[in-house]
Amino acid sequence: MSKILVIHGPNLDLLGNREKDIYGTDTMDDINSEIKNMADADGVECEFFQSSHEGDIVDKIGKTQADGILINPAAYTHTSVAIRDALSAKDIPSVEVHLSNIYAREEFRHKSVIAPVATGQISGFGKNSYIFGYKALMGCISSKK
Amino acid sequence: MSKILVIHGPNLDLLGNREKDIYGTDTMDDINSEIKNMADADGVECEFFQSSHEGDIVDKIGKTQADGILINPAAYTHTSVAIRDALSAKDIPSVEVHLSNIYAREEFRHKSVIAPVATGQISGFGKNSYIFGYKALMGCISSKK
Amino acid sequence: MSKILVIHGPNLDLLGNREKDIYGTDTMDDINSEIKNMADADGVECEFFQSSHEGDIVDKIGKTQADGILINPAAYTHTSVAIRDALSAKDIPSVEVHLSNIYAREEFRHKSVIAPVATGQISGFGKNSYIFGYKALMGCISSKK
Amino acid sequence: MSKILVIHGPNLDLLGNREKDIYGTDTMDDINSEIKNMADADGVECEFFQSSHEGDIVDKIGKTQADGILINPAAYTHTSVAIRDALSAKDIPSVEVHLSNIYAREEFRHKSVIAPVATGQISGFGKNSYIFGYKALMGCISSKK
Amino acid sequence: MSKILVIHGPNLDLLGNREKDIYGTDTMDDINSEIKNMADADGVECEFFQSSHEGDIVDKIGKTQADGILINPAAYTHTSVAIRDALSAKDIPSVEVHLSNIYAREEFRHKSVIAPVATGQISGFGKNSYIFGYKALMGCISSKK
Amino acid sequence: MSKILVIHGPNLDLLGNREKDIYGTDTMDDINSEIKNMADADGVECEFFQSSHEGDIVDKIGKTQADGILINPAAYTHTSVAIRDALSAKDIPSVEVHLSNIYAREEFRHKSVIAPVATGQISGFGKNSYIFGYKALMGCISSKK
Amino acid sequence: MSKILVIHGPNLDLLGNREKDIYGTDTMDDINSEIKNMADADGVECEFFQSSHEGDIVDKIGKTQADGILINPAAYTHTSVAIRDALSAKDIPSVEVHLSNIYAREEFRHKSVIAPVATGQISGFGKNSYIFGYKALMGCISSKK
Amino acid sequence: MSKILVIHGPNLDLLGNREKDIYGTDTMDDINSEIKNMADADGVECEFFQSSHEGDIVDKIGKTQADGILINPAAYTHTSVAIRDALSAKDIPSVEVHLSNIYAREEFRHKSVIAPVATGQISGFGKNSYIFGYKALMGCISSKK
Amino acid sequence: MSKILVIHGPNLDLLGNREKDIYGTDTMDDINSEIKNMADADGVECEFFQSSHEGDIVDKIGKTQADGILINPAAYTHTSVAIRDALSAKDIPSVEVHLSNIYAREEFRHKSVIAPVATGQISGFGKNSYIFGYKALMGCISSKK
Amino acid sequence: MSKILVIHGPNLDLLGNREKDIYGTDTMDDINSEIKNMADADGVECEFFQSSHEGDIVDKIGKTQADGILINPAAYTHTSVAIRDALSAKDIPSVEVHLSNIYAREEFRHKSVIAPVATGQISGFGKNSYIFGYKALMGCISSKK
Amino acid sequence: MSKILVIHGPNLDLLGNREKDIYGTDTMDDINSEIKNMADADGVECEFFQSSHEGDIVDKIGKTQADGILINPAAYTHTSVAIRDALSAKDIPSVEVHLSNIYAREEFRHKSVIAPVATGQISGFGKNSYIFGYKALMGCISSKK
Amino acid sequence: MSKILVIHGPNLDLLGNREKDIYGTDTMDDINSEIKNMADADGVECEFFQSSHEGDIVDKIGKTQADGILINPAAYTHTSVAIRDALSAKDIPSVEVHLSNIYAREEFRHKSVIAPVATGQISGFGKNSYIFGYKALMGCISSKK
Repeated sequence: MSKILVIHGPNLDLLGNREKDIYGTDTMDDINSEIKNMADADGVECEFFQSSHEGDIVDKIGKTQADGILINPAAYTHTSVAIRDALSAKDIPSVEVHLSNIYAREEFRHKSVIAPVATGQISGFGKNSYIFGYKALMGCISSKK
Repeated sequence: MSKILVIHGPNLDLLGNREKDIYGTDTMDDINSEIKNMADADGVECEFFQSSHEGDIVDKIGKTQADGILINPAAYTHTSVAIRDALSAKDIPSVEVHLSNIYAREEFRHKSVIAPVATGQISGFGKNSYIFGYKALMGCISSKK
Repeated sequence: MSKILVIHGPNLDLLGNREKDIYGTDTMDDINSEIKNMADADGVECEFFQSSHEGDIVDKIGKTQADGILINPAAYTHTSVAIRDALSAKDIPSVEVHLSNIYAREEFRHKSVIAPVATGQISGFGKNSYIFGYKALMGCISSKK
Repeated sequence: MSKILVIHGPNLDLLGNREKDIYGTDTMDDINSEIKNMADADGVECEFFQSSHEGDIVDKIGKTQADGILINPAAYTHTSVAIRDALSAKDIPSVEVHLSNIYAREEFRHKSVIAPVATGQISGFGKNSYIFGYKALMGCISSKK
Repeated sequence: MSKILVIHGPNLDLLGNREKDIYGTDTMDDINSEIKNMADADGVECEFFQSSHEGDIVDKIGKTQADGILINPAAYTHTSVAIRDALSAKDIPSVEVHLSNIYAREEFRHKSVIAPVATGQISGFGKNSYIFGYKALMGCISSKK
Repeated sequence: MSKILVIHGPNLDLLGNREKDIYGTDTMDDINSEIKNMADADGVECEFFQSSHEGDIVDKIGKTQADGILINPAAYTHTSVAIRDALSAKDIPSVEVHLSNIYAREEFRHKSVIAPVATGQISGFGKNSYIFGYKALMGCISSKK
Repeated sequence: MSKILVIHGPNLDLLGNREKDIYGTDTMDDINSEIKNMADADGVECEFFQSSHEGDIVDKIGKTQADGILINPAAYTHTSVAIRDALSAKDIPSVEVHLSNIYAREEFRHKSVIAPVATGQISGFGKNSYIFGYKALMGCISSKK
Repeated sequence: MSKILVIHGPNLDLLGNREKDIYGTDTMDDINSEIKNMADADGVECEFFQSSHEGDIVDKIGKTQADGILINPAAYTHTSVAIRDALSAKDIPSVEVHLSNIYAREEFRHKSVIAPVATGQISGFGKNSYIFGYKALMGCISSKK
Repeated sequence: MSKILVIHGPNLDLLGNREKDIYGTDTMDDINSEIKNMADADGVECEFFQSSHEGDIVDKIGKTQADGILINPAAYTHTSVAIRDALSAKDIPSVEVHLSNIYAREEFRHKSVIAPVATGQISGFGKNSYIFGYKALMGCISSKK
Repeated sequence: MSKILVIHGPNLDLLGNREKDIYGTDTMDDINSEIKNMADADGVECEFFQSSHEGDIVDKIGKTQADGILINPAAYTHTSVAIRDALSAKDIPSVEVHLSNIYAREEFRHKSVIAPVATGQISGFGKNSYIFGYKALMGCISSKK
Repeated sequence: MSKILVIHGPNLDLLGNREKDIYGTDTMDDINSEIKNMADADGVECEFFQSSHEGDIVDKIGKTQADGILINPAAYTHTSVAIRDALSAKDIPSVEVHLSNIYAREEFRHKSVIAPVATGQISGFGKNSYIFGYKALMGCISSKK
Repeated sequence: MSKILVIHGPNLDLLGNREKDIYGTDTMDDINSEIKNMADADGVECEFFQSSHEGDIVDKIGKTQADGILINPAAYTHTSVAIRDALSAKDIPSVEVHLSNIYAREEFRHKSVIAPVATGQISGFGKNSYIFGYKALMGCISSKK
């Protein structure tokens, strides 16, 4: 039985209540529920984790026993070498997702320091970025086994 | 009944026969077949188009009656303002896909001139980038209607 | 009797139907008609050419017998060294025109690779950019004779 | 009755004991006392918060019920997209203050990633940067009501 | 009855006497006369102003009652945020003209800080840049009324 | 008895009449009156000076007998080394103020060439930037005596 | 028996008739003849191809059965990722040639996007660049067999 | 009796288990033991601290009573102004160490924001970087007393 | 009989009274006297001009009948394209002088926009920069006659 | 009878013994022999020179009586303005050669400071770069006579 | 029995007599003596070499039979691709040392072109940089055997 | 009795015979003679030194007993940190001279790495640059005594 770790970065706990024109009205719980449902159907174990602390995310990745990681690094996408190194040190697939299209926003959001070590990236489909991200991750885990 | 246009950029007609370590062994026809199957199941009409000509792609986009566009601009991802303008002029959803993770390759491939005008981008999952791209596009078309 | 070549770059065939807030409601045919009328009055022969193919534009310039070129390179303004070289190889006046003020748009549109080899540039006056462009070109041809 | 949140970033707990030539001899408590006195006189509730953790500051901002935020992001001024996003997501006034004139120091301190989302910025007046910052914040809150 | 303001920037009072290979033999008075003639024919009032002082040009723009501005900012094209702000603050059309093709000269002349706030720009046609500039400006004023 | 010099840079004489969404409805005279009132109450002499001429501002600074300078350099903030040098040569406190938050506007407005030689900077509080600027300046003068 | 493909990029069909001070008086046919003669002597089959279309060149490379490619990408040297990808996908030697010394011309010509995937580059010897390019290519083909 | 603080940054708790080709097989405990042995022999007190939290490291540095600091900032080497400021505020020697040669890795690892405020840096000798770092630090502490 | 024009840029009227560690104790009058003495001895007519107004300097250069210009552009060295153009338009020798070594000061002072159009530049010898500048200018005038 | 000078830059004396995957197994003597043979056949005098000293190469070029220079500047390709100036001062043809394709190696090797003053450049063909370089040089000398 | 080569770059022969605040009072002979003593104790043969000639250092490295190199490239640290190539061609360990902390000095000293090919780097500990450098080198040689 | 050292960099031994349009017809000996005459008249001892070797110049500077240095670093102006360090280590005045106006030539010649450590710089007056350089140096030596 596979296990995946779903990580939400800083400010994502407030999803659905803030800047709805950019991020939509789905809450983090809504997203987690949808992933949980799919995972249950697939017989996959799912751990959800949200933190605004770079160090917490680094430690979580370092200690996880999961077979794959689905991560929305949010603001840390653009600044965190520590999370990059944590992912890179882990020999498992990881998928980076973004609710908004980061390439249609401010210049500094066009650069992800995480992307070069992730398996792939999905950006711009709101809640669906997570849905496809889950599926993409499962595909990576399967093809690896 | 919805209609979508699937565009493959330069060199993609050779897929499956070249640089298999980067792009995998699926051919363009394999990918088109999978999309066709999904589209048939969804009752969606599908047009497939491959060209190594920037101008052909521009014209195809300009003239299409499709409700959405799934595009792998390949090399033109990094250079074609003309394709960007063509997509931007069209008031329909578009999804940019890449077989390889462009952010894990040469520096010049990290910049997409297309991404800022696409609805979203999916990169790094081989044939699955197209599969999820198709689904993401259908989601965009649905939520627009 | 003078002869001029009027070139419209990619996407301009759709003029008047797309992004009207940026480009206005005049169609390419409207613009061509106005130029034709002025040219007829001036006893000038006029050839109109639109293409989304960089190579077509290069070949057209290379083979033309015209005494001057009026060109809106559109997206190729910012990327086409090939069109630049074609114009540069031709020992005749050329005028670069733009419907919108390219300096008031995205950063990447501020740089024209064509401008350094054109005789001059007119930008920002909608259809009138072509009108003044025609007149400017005629002035260049006259002063050269 | 208004409520404000006063945030001190990393290393500011040591104020008055370190690099006195740059930051002066006032301690963080001295500064808080002065703000408290002004707030009491204005009938304003005041919460003080110091942390060297980016994540703590992000969470504090995300959860506060305050009507305005007075923040000296210290080192995070130059690196924290996460704090920027937290402030940006909050629909209340915020004032960024600095004890020293950051524009008279090392090049990398001239760039604040926070400033574009703050209401305004005050830099270079030692303890007084906070005093004027408090007043500026109260002005913003008043004019908003 | 419309009124326009024609502004010539630094060194343009010497036109016709200096660097004739770049700027031609027309004097500023020659140019003004031609504009005056066209304006008289159009029933348009015309004020001419030359100054080598950035501040004079700023003040002139700030105080004018004209319906449009025709300006050759000369050297200030590349350096004057003050003139840019003055034009931007004025809610009337403005046309930026250049005698020489600034894009065919030194690199630093390729960047105009004025262009983003002007209605449009004409560059490279010698005296004719002004003639077409006048006409373009009249077109803008007309379409605005 | 202290004396201060208040300098308003280019275009600020038009304040309250232009771009009110950016700069508000207060006029320069309104601002000067408020400063005058505070100064009268403090027994401070106040000289007000507005100019769109970089050279006038340089000369004014060079010749003043004031104990401190409150300056809104406006457009010259980003371009004037001459004003910077004038302030730097004067051994008295100076405070740079801005009505709008310059860090929330165009990229080129994020860089102040004046700030490194001013005592401090206040940006983004409309008329209040001047009010706090006055107070900050008085604080600097006091602590210096 | 070996086979090679000789590709001439945009504008090269006009060789010998344009800008003779830069490119000399040899025509493309002159060059092709010389290569043909050498190839005949070596018992090598030779296909010649000229196009101003990036897409044509991409397709030609993709479909060729040649053992090596001799290419003067002309303007596409500096812009075409598509041709680069086409060459890179082909597992055969390729030699990039230039008539003029591209490093002695405009700055933008100093950068070849093709060179990193070619076997080698020869620049600056007019028609002889092709002659040596032919020989270099034959050397590469031989040493590979 | 001297006291030193040894700090290990993010991901270093996993040392010896990850990316062994880059970082070797020594664990953090192995390294700490070796330092402890040397320190015992020298009669030096040693505190060991590992954290993936930037804020924890900042606080630890701020509160330590040690006479010197030996730090491997790991990923924070390249991003943490907060740790830099914490070290800079402390008036004691500090030595920055790296297991791998950071100058032989990705471009972004060539820049240390910590190095300018450290006493010195040692990079590239695996576990020995710590050993020499300990000795270098002791040398600095001795020469200071 | 030759005539020269000596121009002092902004803030130089205060020389000898400000920042003496950088600029020394000589006043502008001291410098002018020394030049005057040399010029009298050489039978050369000398006009001295100081202004903090870029426009005044531009106009002065434009209208002078001098055979050569000795100029210390001070702050305008780094910003004034207008003065550069004025000098460039004048077909007479010009020598740029600086009291301090501008290459040993802030980065932005290392770039002179004037130098490329001056005959030569002398920097770093205090009053002597003017003395040698005078002599260099006389040499240029002589060798031209 | 023509004479040529063949220059090998730093480290090339070790050729064939070091990094054979990059530079191949031919020694410098092997290369010189081949050139000597061709030169003998052509009745051309040949001087060979190797030095790791920039100054020696500068002096050799300055003093040579040769009719042309064949040079592999090796590491000095990227740094030596002195060798560039020496070649530039010599009014004879020069050909720059490289064993490896410098454009397929580290970024800093893509820039040659020598190339702009050489007649042409050949890169990437191992020993054959010298062979074609010899022939190219002879062509240049012939066409010059 | 191992043998090492110790190289001192330009100006280091003057050590102890110049800029003592930066480099300290130890002479090169002092440093060499200490290394000699350690080497004697370790039964290691030691060759010392100082040169201000880039070429000498290149040749010395190229010809040495040593098992490892300890090098302070001094000024050549930042400019010498030739020394980098010489070290890189040698298949033995090398340690780069600096007396001062190069990252705490001018910007241009932060970049070492040597570091990417050295085994490791030690910077900032005065004479001790060499001492630890010797030990680090011996460690590298040992672990290699 | 004072003593000065006059240093001529690479290629200057050929002066008067090469590129006369840039450097004039004076030979190095002509220049040395003129300096010698002035020095004799002033009772100053003069040593002349020319080398194309960076290392020779470094050593010469390091060992000289002169009271001041007059140096034309030629090509090393733009590349030699070693010469910069040698001059900087010497506690005596130095004057950098250039025959041509380096700011009117290629971009890369606009940057001198020597200038920040020289007392001053003179550029653009041919042989006279040396003459004024000698005088400037004598002035510096005098004012130091």
